[in-house]
Amino acid sequence: MPKTVAAFGEVMMRLEAPGLRLLSQTDTLQVSYSGSGVNVLSALSRFGHRVLPVTTLPDNPIGDAAEANLRKLGLLPDFVRRDGLHLGMYFLEAGFGARPSRVTYSNRPQSSFNTAAEGIYPFADIASSVDAVHFCGISLAMNDTVRRNALAFAEAVKAAGKTVIFDCNYRPALWGEDGYAIARPWYEKMLHLADIVCMNENDAIHVLGLPASSTERLHQLQELIPSVAKTYNIATIAGTHRHIEADGRHSLLGYLHTGDAFYFSDPLTFPVYDRIGAGDAYASGIIHGQLSEFAPEQTVRFASAASMLAHTIAGDTPFSSEAQIFRAMMEGIGDIER
Amino acid sequence: MPKTVAAFGEVMMRLEAPGLRLLSQTDTLQVSYSGSGVNVLSALSRFGHRVLPVTTLPDNPIGDAAEANLRKLGLLPDFVRRDGLHLGMYFLEAGFGARPSRVTYSNRPQSSFNTAAEGIYPFADIASSVDAVHFCGISLAMNDTVRRNALAFAEAVKAAGKTVIFDCNYRPALWGEDGYAIARPWYEKMLHLADIVCMNENDAIHVLGLPASSTERLHQLQELIPSVAKTYNIATIAGTHRHIEADGRHSLLGYLHTGDAFYFSDPLTFPVYDRIGAGDAYASGIIHGQLSEFAPEQTVRFASAASMLAHTIAGDTPFSSEAQIFRAMMEGIGDIER
Amino acid sequence: MPKTVAAFGEVMMRLEAPGLRLLSQTDTLQVSYSGSGVNVLSALSRFGHRVLPVTTLPDNPIGDAAEANLRKLGLLPDFVRRDGLHLGMYFLEAGFGARPSRVTYSNRPQSSFNTAAEGIYPFADIASSVDAVHFCGISLAMNDTVRRNALAFAEAVKAAGKTVIFDCNYRPALWGEDGYAIARPWYEKMLHLADIVCMNENDAIHVLGLPASSTERLHQLQELIPSVAKTYNIATIAGTHRHIEADGRHSLLGYLHTGDAFYFSDPLTFPVYDRIGAGDAYASGIIHGQLSEFAPEQTVRFASAASMLAHTIAGDTPFSSEAQIFRAMMEGIGDIER
Amino acid sequence: MPKTVAAFGEVMMRLEAPGLRLLSQTDTLQVSYSGSGVNVLSALSRFGHRVLPVTTLPDNPIGDAAEANLRKLGLLPDFVRRDGLHLGMYFLEAGFGARPSRVTYSNRPQSSFNTAAEGIYPFADIASSVDAVHFCGISLAMNDTVRRNALAFAEAVKAAGKTVIFDCNYRPALWGEDGYAIARPWYEKMLHLADIVCMNENDAIHVLGLPASSTERLHQLQELIPSVAKTYNIATIAGTHRHIEADGRHSLLGYLHTGDAFYFSDPLTFPVYDRIGAGDAYASGIIHGQLSEFAPEQTVRFASAASMLAHTIAGDTPFSSEAQIFRAMMEGIGDIER
Amino acid sequence: MPKTVAAFGEVMMRLEAPGLRLLSQTDTLQVSYSGSGVNVLSALSRFGHRVLPVTTLPDNPIGDAAEANLRKLGLLPDFVRRDGLHLGMYFLEAGFGARPSRVTYSNRPQSSFNTAAEGIYPFADIASSVDAVHFCGISLAMNDTVRRNALAFAEAVKAAGKTVIFDCNYRPALWGEDGYAIARPWYEKMLHLADIVCMNENDAIHVLGLPASSTERLHQLQELIPSVAKTYNIATIAGTHRHIEADGRHSLLGYLHTGDAFYFSDPLTFPVYDRIGAGDAYASGIIHGQLSEFAPEQTVRFASAASMLAHTIAGDTPFSSEAQIFRAMMEGIGDIER
Amino acid sequence: MPKTVAAFGEVMMRLEAPGLRLLSQTDTLQVSYSGSGVNVLSALSRFGHRVLPVTTLPDNPIGDAAEANLRKLGLLPDFVRRDGLHLGMYFLEAGFGARPSRVTYSNRPQSSFNTAAEGIYPFADIASSVDAVHFCGISLAMNDTVRRNALAFAEAVKAAGKTVIFDCNYRPALWGEDGYAIARPWYEKMLHLADIVCMNENDAIHVLGLPASSTERLHQLQELIPSVAKTYNIATIAGTHRHIEADGRHSLLGYLHTGDAFYFSDPLTFPVYDRIGAGDAYASGIIHGQLSEFAPEQTVRFASAASMLAHTIAGDTPFSSEAQIFRAMMEGIGDIER
Repeated sequence: MPKTVAAFGEVMMRLEAPGLRLLSQTDTLQVSYSGSGVNVLSALSRFGHRVLPVTTLPDNPIGDAAEANLRKLGLLPDFVRRDGLHLGMYFLEAGFGARPSRVTYSNRPQSSFNTAAEGIYPFADIASSVDAVHFCGISLAMNDTVRRNALAFAEAVKAAGKTVIFDCNYRPALWGEDGYAIARPWYEKMLHLADIVCMNENDAIHVLGLPASSTERLHQLQELIPSVAKTYNIATIAGTHRHIEADGRHSLLGYLHTGDAFYFSDPLTFPVYDRIGAGDAYASGIIHGQLSEFAPEQTVRFASAASMLAHTIAGDTPFSSEAQIFRAMMEGIGDIER
Repeated sequence: MPKTVAAFGEVMMRLEAPGLRLLSQTDTLQVSYSGSGVNVLSALSRFGHRVLPVTTLPDNPIGDAAEANLRKLGLLPDFVRRDGLHLGMYFLEAGFGARPSRVTYSNRPQSSFNTAAEGIYPFADIASSVDAVHFCGISLAMNDTVRRNALAFAEAVKAAGKTVIFDCNYRPALWGEDGYAIARPWYEKMLHLADIVCMNENDAIHVLGLPASSTERLHQLQELIPSVAKTYNIATIAGTHRHIEADGRHSLLGYLHTGDAFYFSDPLTFPVYDRIGAGDAYASGIIHGQLSEFAPEQTVRFASAASMLAHTIAGDTPFSSEAQIFRAMMEGIGDIER
Repeated sequence: MPKTVAAFGEVMMRLEAPGLRLLSQTDTLQVSYSGSGVNVLSALSRFGHRVLPVTTLPDNPIGDAAEANLRKLGLLPDFVRRDGLHLGMYFLEAGFGARPSRVTYSNRPQSSFNTAAEGIYPFADIASSVDAVHFCGISLAMNDTVRRNALAFAEAVKAAGKTVIFDCNYRPALWGEDGYAIARPWYEKMLHLADIVCMNENDAIHVLGLPASSTERLHQLQELIPSVAKTYNIATIAGTHRHIEADGRHSLLGYLHTGDAFYFSDPLTFPVYDRIGAGDAYASGIIHGQLSEFAPEQTVRFASAASMLAHTIAGDTPFSSEAQIFRAMMEGIGDIER
Repeated sequence: MPKTVAAFGEVMMRLEAPGLRLLSQTDTLQVSYSGSGVNVLSALSRFGHRVLPVTTLPDNPIGDAAEANLRKLGLLPDFVRRDGLHLGMYFLEAGFGARPSRVTYSNRPQSSFNTAAEGIYPFADIASSVDAVHFCGISLAMNDTVRRNALAFAEAVKAAGKTVIFDCNYRPALWGEDGYAIARPWYEKMLHLADIVCMNENDAIHVLGLPASSTERLHQLQELIPSVAKTYNIATIAGTHRHIEADGRHSLLGYLHTGDAFYFSDPLTFPVYDRIGAGDAYASGIIHGQLSEFAPEQTVRFASAASMLAHTIAGDTPFSSEAQIFRAMMEGIGDIER
Repeated sequence: MPKTVAAFGEVMMRLEAPGLRLLSQTDTLQVSYSGSGVNVLSALSRFGHRVLPVTTLPDNPIGDAAEANLRKLGLLPDFVRRDGLHLGMYFLEAGFGARPSRVTYSNRPQSSFNTAAEGIYPFADIASSVDAVHFCGISLAMNDTVRRNALAFAEAVKAAGKTVIFDCNYRPALWGEDGYAIARPWYEKMLHLADIVCMNENDAIHVLGLPASSTERLHQLQELIPSVAKTYNIATIAGTHRHIEADGRHSLLGYLHTGDAFYFSDPLTFPVYDRIGAGDAYASGIIHGQLSEFAPEQTVRFASAASMLAHTIAGDTPFSSEAQIFRAMMEGIGDIER
Repeated sequence: MPKTVAAFGEVMMRLEAPGLRLLSQTDTLQVSYSGSGVNVLSALSRFGHRVLPVTTLPDNPIGDAAEANLRKLGLLPDFVRRDGLHLGMYFLEAGFGARPSRVTYSNRPQSSFNTAAEGIYPFADIASSVDAVHFCGISLAMNDTVRRNALAFAEAVKAAGKTVIFDCNYRPALWGEDGYAIARPWYEKMLHLADIVCMNENDAIHVLGLPASSTERLHQLQELIPSVAKTYNIATIAGTHRHIEADGRHSLLGYLHTGDAFYFSDPLTFPVYDRIGAGDAYASGIIHGQLSEFAPEQTVRFASAASMLAHTIAGDTPFSSEAQIFRAMMEGIGDIER
């Protein structure tokens, strides 16, 4: 039973130096358009849902290109405003082995999304026409107007009796010094409204300031997440633990806390082609499982496999169908399909 | 002592999405021209043999391009017919890690090769002018006319006292439902004519319907291959067991059954750059070893190393010289050659 | 006042050799997705209309890519069926100077569109939900089933009181020998149903078999088009005369016959970057002018300028906005816009 | 006798859609780094002068890439500050025929150059170590701080007895409504300081508000430029008249006013490959002629030929040597040089 | 009636900066393999002849790539020696408008061809197995050993009663100062052996030192060519006059002198995409006309049209079929072929 | 405290087949400019030093491109001579797994550097204006003139009281048969002059002919290096032991011998993206550590990490900053930096 899902957030132009080159080594860049909400919606579109970004794109050829590419990903532009002149950008120098990937943001504070006025979106109307809306902590990091818009939208969704999804996604570099203190009240408000939340113990400790009685991550998770669920009355909390192996492969352990119980995926270990957006793929798996009323054991395994596959695909945006993810849950590494 | 070897089969256009992208993610495609016979002949050309495809290419610019690329690979076009309008194609979305490679065929049933009339090739003349001819089970999967042409050609080769090479290469998706039953009589006829055969225990069990007394692959192989050799009076049977490791590397164990004895290569484990065509590289190694009268121990190691190297080369078509394969048989992974 | 416009026709993959190369000279191809209906709808989408192709795409990754690219062009996939395995293709070797562009079709007879069964589309439902539907003579050239589907759809549109648009687009190579005789009855039926028709005097003479009393094209046009309009009761007929100058530039003279009067554009002379699809751009201009109730003088000038601009854009598909076309109608060649 | 020349202005990243595509049609962009001052200095570097940009680049990988590319062009980074996070950008969709090139600016107001504080550059030190400094009207359009910095630098150059070069380069879109009124006082101040000025009659009429007694451009030029030279005490004023021919070629007429006399180049007509930066090439020719004490007839012909050649080169930045320009002054279109 | 034609000469790697860029502006190069003999043979291969280069390629991966590409062009490698380590190269910066194309040679004196020992080729055997052999003045410019080899080969061809073809192709930059004096005796010897010669009046005046009684090129041609034909007893002499128009198009007038009569093509004027190799295309047209016994009027028009088409094709090497050239002889600029 | 460092050696054009292709499989090549000295200087430039190559580049467009690219890498061209016509080249077919990378040199003996006359560089002047000069054993392999120039330069550096750095870099293929005997006297002379030397036990055994009492590499190193240090009075000797793991990763152990003591890095194991130039990165780390007076333990770890990072970067040339290397010394494999 397909649902209608919206997402509130910035659309960005990703400009990648090809061939693992540095910006100083290339005179071509690969362009794509992404963003946390874009990635989640694109994934949900592959699963059959109707998906609509709620955002503002510039009213110029860059905005035209962004909108065309969102449509290509399966996103419907009904709630896309066109206003202003700027699109947030990030330059990506993909890493290799001991050299980490490097992201350089550009033009973000001035972007059409980040400068859209408070109250300019018809949040109540949108809320009434969708089943769920996705919010992301990255938006909260932008500025007060974006924060107020996000909160107003979440309140409208709650008021309309629809599902609020919130991915904590705390990015230290975007919040700056004293970021946790600045972020906390906004996160608390969002968590009070949210039905499905992506986070892990680090968010609980650092953003919410909860004390942990252990130094071991899994213990912290098992101690703090139920407490967060209770405090903020959150039906579903999910997230991952990521570990980078000595041989460069990543390991992922997904968890899902719902109905007062924890569910874990098997740990997955896999090589990585493009790591960006894999967290959004995990979120999309959790959302799909919950919207489709999968058993929780199934949901957490589905989300982990969705995230694993997202690491194997170029670009930020997941492209796997439900069938492909089910197959990846069942099999090891496959040979050619022909 | 170089030989003259022909191969009967379809030439295909391979259209690959670059950078491990999906078709939905790319607006450029990498083009090459391949096919099981093309790959085997190209490899044999590197070993010094004179090689001639027996096929039909369209009589239009696509056929011109295909023929030019066959010549580039070292194949002589003397037995290439030019007729019709279509070339079989396949689109390749190369996989990574848990995401398998995906092949989408196009335009195959209508291809010039697959619609060439029965008896239109001068098989007897060709047979008299070559030392050996390679056939592939993929051709048998196409349609009755192709099957009858293949069989007529193999009979002509046999009648001329030349070597019939048959690579079973059973592709379930091409034969469809009840494929084994449809395929069996054709495979049996080809095996009765063949001198050198590539197959393994799965072909014996599924295509030929032989019962196995064990569930272990190697036992099955050692039980069934001698039986096939005897039943069909086949001098040489060879093949591989492939295993995909947890870290994504492939392992290959080559076997050769000749003179009532089994010979095995050491198992080779290696990373994979382009897996397609590696089976043809193995076949080419077996054929070269037999045509050049290598010791069987040498032949099976040569074929396995040839196949390993084919995994390291872009495209379907092997490019290694005899010297490079000998070096790979002796050494581990090498540093730069300069 | 934006309208809803559908188009019935095949979507094709265009595979272009880059850099004006021949197929024999390239190992990369540029991919895009087009078709007469796609081009017209894409142009109308730029003018603000809601546009929906009525077609069948294969149910495989090639169809996924095609559908994603249609969405990118602004087309809504609501009436796109997914069935079968094949997409029509054409290979383009772009010409230069005395070397004409060369198009090689592939996989067209087997395409999902051309093999879709009669009556499989919900034509009555579609007709009731749109304002106008575009048909193209290229579809009529395919096979009887496509012809019957096209006719049934046009009848449904007529029955629903909506506008039937028919672009004669007679392609001799597709109809083969005796093509005019085969085509005539189908063209006559379509013309009886049509409200807006793109054609010129050659269609009248060759397809409809009308006698001309002059050998001069413009005289023929002025003699035959009113007669066609009367015979078939067609409100609007439009088309172009194209002439290639000695220096390689093209000249275009657009005409529009409506309300018993002829309207002509000024002749436009311009250099050509990509000529394919420029006829569809002209049709889109006529359709837009008529749907938007431009004065006929304005419509014919708008359509000619739209076509001129389409010659300046890479690919088959027009990309100009209404504002850009108005500007081109007023100005000569412009300097940089910055 | 080579000179040392500095230029004050913004460095920009140019992001061009390849193959004359639109931003909506491409997923790769060609990157280069340019700017009015960069272009002039790069040209002067080819003529043997020592050249130094005075600017601020971001202190991140984008700034690293920009600085590396300036060095590649022959510019010495001694006076390049590294500060802030943003580089001005422009997206270029190159035009063809009736479709004009389209430039979309991005990230400019926030660029490191445009946000550099007043007085942060060591203008006096720089002035003392160079022979001449180039300023551009584009910088004046940015904001008050940039304007004040430019003026302070020009005053320092004047005070040091060095040559002030000022290219009026009035860009209406950057100054906005009432732009002429806002711009006038700044232009007047710069003109009072300048020794070499690039402008034409339009600048005199619109920016300086001078009345013209004729409507013919050449008359206006001959009336107004001597008046400007006198009013502002400018030794050398130069500029061009550009005309776009019906066949798309550009025609250029260069003028030079010095020592109370006018000198004109022959009008040059030529095809255009990349028009951006050709005005800077003209300026570089004037500067080189004056610094090298060419006869004025020679200087104006040299500058015009330099500009013509700049239209034949990809990117904004001129690449012709003095010898190549001299040859172009003497010859028609040449055949291959081998 | 297809013939067997050989050509003696150097194969070169062409390394072209793409997008009309300079070497300083690119970090990719387009590679192809050409040479005067390669171009002529490739063209003759399109006309149905059997063609064989007589040359030496390095015995390393560069030589492998060159040989594979010759095969792709249709050349048979039977007379290709593999020896040494170097392949001649040239870097091409394609010109535009007033900026001429620039060729920079590299590695030529050391090339395997230019260092092959005297007498190392089996010239007598080759001569006996072919119908004609093409020689080029460029080879004569290399060094004494190459000159002696060329002469020995031409003598062997003459002795075997086969056709000697000699294209004068005098390149001043390769012969250096006093080049005419050094070249003359070698040219004289070749002309005495030749049956078909490509040259024009400039070769007669400068290389052979003949006095001209007029300053007009056509008069000089008509005066000197019959004299050369008589002196050296040459059955067929042919060549072209090229003129570059103000708008950048080239004009070509082909001539053919045979049986004591002159034949001229109509002058052809056309835009140029890649000029290099167009002289070889002309030569191939003359050779094909003579070998196929076309009427001389037909031959000269065929050769001119072949050359015109060669200007429209990327790379040095002609790709037009006989049918395409006949069509170009009959028609103006064509529209799309589909 | 930044230093001024020069390097004497050849600059080469690297022409790489993209996508791990063979030369026979590609028609594009990736171009960059490198060389042992270039790589070391580029790395030192990232660390803040002033760096100047001492070399000769051809006086043509290839030399222009090379010089522009050196400037882009941060090298100052003050001591770059422009003379002659040739640049050394190497073609790279990058390996994968069991297929080793293959380097084919071209045009090297004729290069402007290798044919520059003895004494043509102002060595004394250069020596007086720098702190240290880097020499490489590859230069010694070229010819006697280069060897004599290198030695004269090293003597001038010594005479000026500056630091002589010598990287032994013995390349067997360049020295040919009896290479060790030919090389020994030159190496001995250089070692007598050198202050900092890169070598390992193999150089001591084979080039210097020292006997080893053990067959174990580490024992040989610990036995022979102190002896070399003593014999030649070398303050600092450093080098690496490289090992290729079964899974294709490389392991590196760096050593530093100074002040009569050995210092070792931890062994580092890492995947390899581009191995060429990684030895130069190690040398640059040693030089930077010594010039900056790091503790020896720090220097050897810094050099090893610098080398490890150089394996992760496309091209020969290291691009890591001091900060990035310090981070790599402290951390494991990192996640995205954003």
